[in-house]
Amino acid sequence: MNWKLAARAEKMNPSVLREILKVTERPGIISLAGGLPSPKTFPISAFAEACAQVLSTQGEAALQYSASEGFAPLCQAVADMLPWKVDPAQVLITTGSQQGLDLVAKVLLDPGSRVLVETPTYLGALQAFAPMEPVPVGVASDAQGVLAEDLLAKAPGARFAYLLPNFQNPTGRTMSEARRAAVSAAAKSAGLPIVEDNPYGELWFDEAPPLPLTARNPEGCIYLGSFSKVLAPGLRLGFLVAPKAIFPKLLQAKQAADLHSPIFNQRMVFEVMKDGFLDRHVPTIRALYKRQRDAMVAALQREMKGLDVEFNTPAGGMFLWLRMPAGIDTVALLPKAVERGVAFVPGAPFYAGESDSRTLRLSFVTASVEEIEKAIAALAATVREQLAHQLAAKTEQLLASAATP
Amino acid sequence: MNWKLAARAEKMNPSVLREILKVTERPGIISLAGGLPSPKTFPISAFAEACAQVLSTQGEAALQYSASEGFAPLCQAVADMLPWKVDPAQVLITTGSQQGLDLVAKVLLDPGSRVLVETPTYLGALQAFAPMEPVPVGVASDAQGVLAEDLLAKAPGARFAYLLPNFQNPTGRTMSEARRAAVSAAAKSAGLPIVEDNPYGELWFDEAPPLPLTARNPEGCIYLGSFSKVLAPGLRLGFLVAPKAIFPKLLQAKQAADLHSPIFNQRMVFEVMKDGFLDRHVPTIRALYKRQRDAMVAALQREMKGLDVEFNTPAGGMFLWLRMPAGIDTVALLPKAVERGVAFVPGAPFYAGESDSRTLRLSFVTASVEEIEKAIAALAATVREQLAHQLAAKTEQLLASAATP
Repeated sequence: MNWKLAARAEKMNPSVLREILKVTERPGIISLAGGLPSPKTFPISAFAEACAQVLSTQGEAALQYSASEGFAPLCQAVADMLPWKVDPAQVLITTGSQQGLDLVAKVLLDPGSRVLVETPTYLGALQAFAPMEPVPVGVASDAQGVLAEDLLAKAPGARFAYLLPNFQNPTGRTMSEARRAAVSAAAKSAGLPIVEDNPYGELWFDEAPPLPLTARNPEGCIYLGSFSKVLAPGLRLGFLVAPKAIFPKLLQAKQAADLHSPIFNQRMVFEVMKDGFLDRHVPTIRALYKRQRDAMVAALQREMKGLDVEFNTPAGGMFLWLRMPAGIDTVALLPKAVERGVAFVPGAPFYAGESDSRTLRLSFVTASVEEIEKAIAALAATVREQLAHQLAAKTEQLLASAATP
Repeated sequence: MNWKLAARAEKMNPSVLREILKVTERPGIISLAGGLPSPKTFPISAFAEACAQVLSTQGEAALQYSASEGFAPLCQAVADMLPWKVDPAQVLITTGSQQGLDLVAKVLLDPGSRVLVETPTYLGALQAFAPMEPVPVGVASDAQGVLAEDLLAKAPGARFAYLLPNFQNPTGRTMSEARRAAVSAAAKSAGLPIVEDNPYGELWFDEAPPLPLTARNPEGCIYLGSFSKVLAPGLRLGFLVAPKAIFPKLLQAKQAADLHSPIFNQRMVFEVMKDGFLDRHVPTIRALYKRQRDAMVAALQREMKGLDVEFNTPAGGMFLWLRMPAGIDTVALLPKAVERGVAFVPGAPFYAGESDSRTLRLSFVTASVEEIEKAIAALAATVREQLAHQLAAKTEQLLASAATP
């Protein structure tokens, strides 16, 4: 048969991350690789009550086709939850916030369109954009995210900047108030739209992060949010908020993509949320993840002592970012670490342009404190061993060169 | 802000159907327009039991991220359910079968690619394909679907033919065994892939339809199926079966689109299905829809007597197709019908090329027998009134022309 693929299909590649994760799913491996919320945080009994309630009081409506925009009371709840004035008619419920990325790409990206992204950025966004064949351009970034000057320099002709200001995936870093103000002003002055992705914003440990970029310029931003990290990812519910100029096209793309997100799930989530449940539930997630972040940072400080390993202390979210000493390539390091029973994600796939092969991402949310401690010790042992091998090889080289007449 | 839309966004248009349906949602209107399964058929108590069971025995897994391919036991159940040998590794669970159309379009359609479709065809497919900017080409069709000769004539250079052999939306027509054999042979000889959409196949009234086209040539077909019509649409679960040559690209497109379909819904549906539930449940849907089809056909025979209205008697599914007498444009007829309390869908939007403005689609599944009888009487009265107006206008014209010296 004459199966001829679309040109864009060439741009779709198996997720490197996914292939890596398969290796790490072997029994006995402690995985710090995945981005899986701790299942301890899933409010199973609240969902069970909500299911029973929805099916007994609104079963027919919950199982029927419904509006592409989403369940109106849930759109209203999302609007009410956000820290700026949002008209519920600008809220679109999506099948996970990943779908928001797909819709944005369909509506805003032509083949060859430039998209500005952080260095590094969320791999899943690069994958969601890829079928529309844009050219992702990395903006110079530091521990707070993109530099406003470089954003401004690269803005001309770009379709949008894709930014994750809170506890970014993969680095865990957060934009300060000053950086947000500068980035927002730069984008505004350049007429550069921002697609702001905020799946982790509620998972702060000591204080809430500064206002979203969208709150500073709602007409210039599309905002993506998710219920995956505050309730559960298995329901696949997220949302986007878009300016009225763009909303109808996103809605049409949504209709064409899957008609609507499961209304049963939407009604169930609304039922769970409606009496302020998140105000009670989310603090328990924050407390758990903070304990685990503390354990990971303490273990890194203890185990990596004397090694030239750099890492940050994220103020929230799920991830922590490491940079290994010179000479260590984390793609090559991974199989060695897996042999010692620990898995991580190498940093390279998260870069749009040139990558830093010394970086890696650790998740502190899935594994327990005990597992984190064991895993970090194993990782440190792997690094020491690799460094020792390197030194031995260098020594041998040196001796060999000395022996040469 | 400089929101520049992708060229493909110009091809996305608000669903004509959707805008029409909004008008018809006024209270007091009997709608024969929508494609909503009868909510009487939703197995609410089975779902309630399944929810409770899934959350109590596998809550953490049901709420966590999961594999893009779908829940393995559900993929196996789908493979077992289909009437040809299907490897479960070729089954991909989708967020409704609408998503299957989106994925197929992404992977197989370039801007300008020709797609062969029935005359008329499912509007939602035209909308799902539109963002990838293909050129849909209508294949000459009769009461059994596409003509094999015209399919063969139009095959060169086409990416695939999109066909609905069972109780097609919008016409309700079904391909005979002989037509299937001819269409399958034509496609095979031309090397033309087929995308076979079969959401209604289980809803047969007297006997099961002939084998799917895919069963005749699995390597040359992508098959789309749905749980929306045999269980409930509000869960948004469908599936596709694809040859191994194409499956990995569809899977990558799926990952990028929404990571995976809700695993909670997948486990719930598997739980409901696992003890042969569909074998007991689906016959009750068939019986209900058959009664309602019979009522509609009887009402049409009674009420449309003497009018030159043509209609079919579908052997299953949800829809029936009418052709009005010469001079009646069903788009103009609709507001008149709504005034009399009945809504339908004009046929024109379902055509890829030149449309037949005298056609319209009626659904016999959502309204009750009493409502169907009332609605068809109202529709007939509308048609009579329109014909009378036409005759009066013609008479006046004739008299006016006679009066002219």
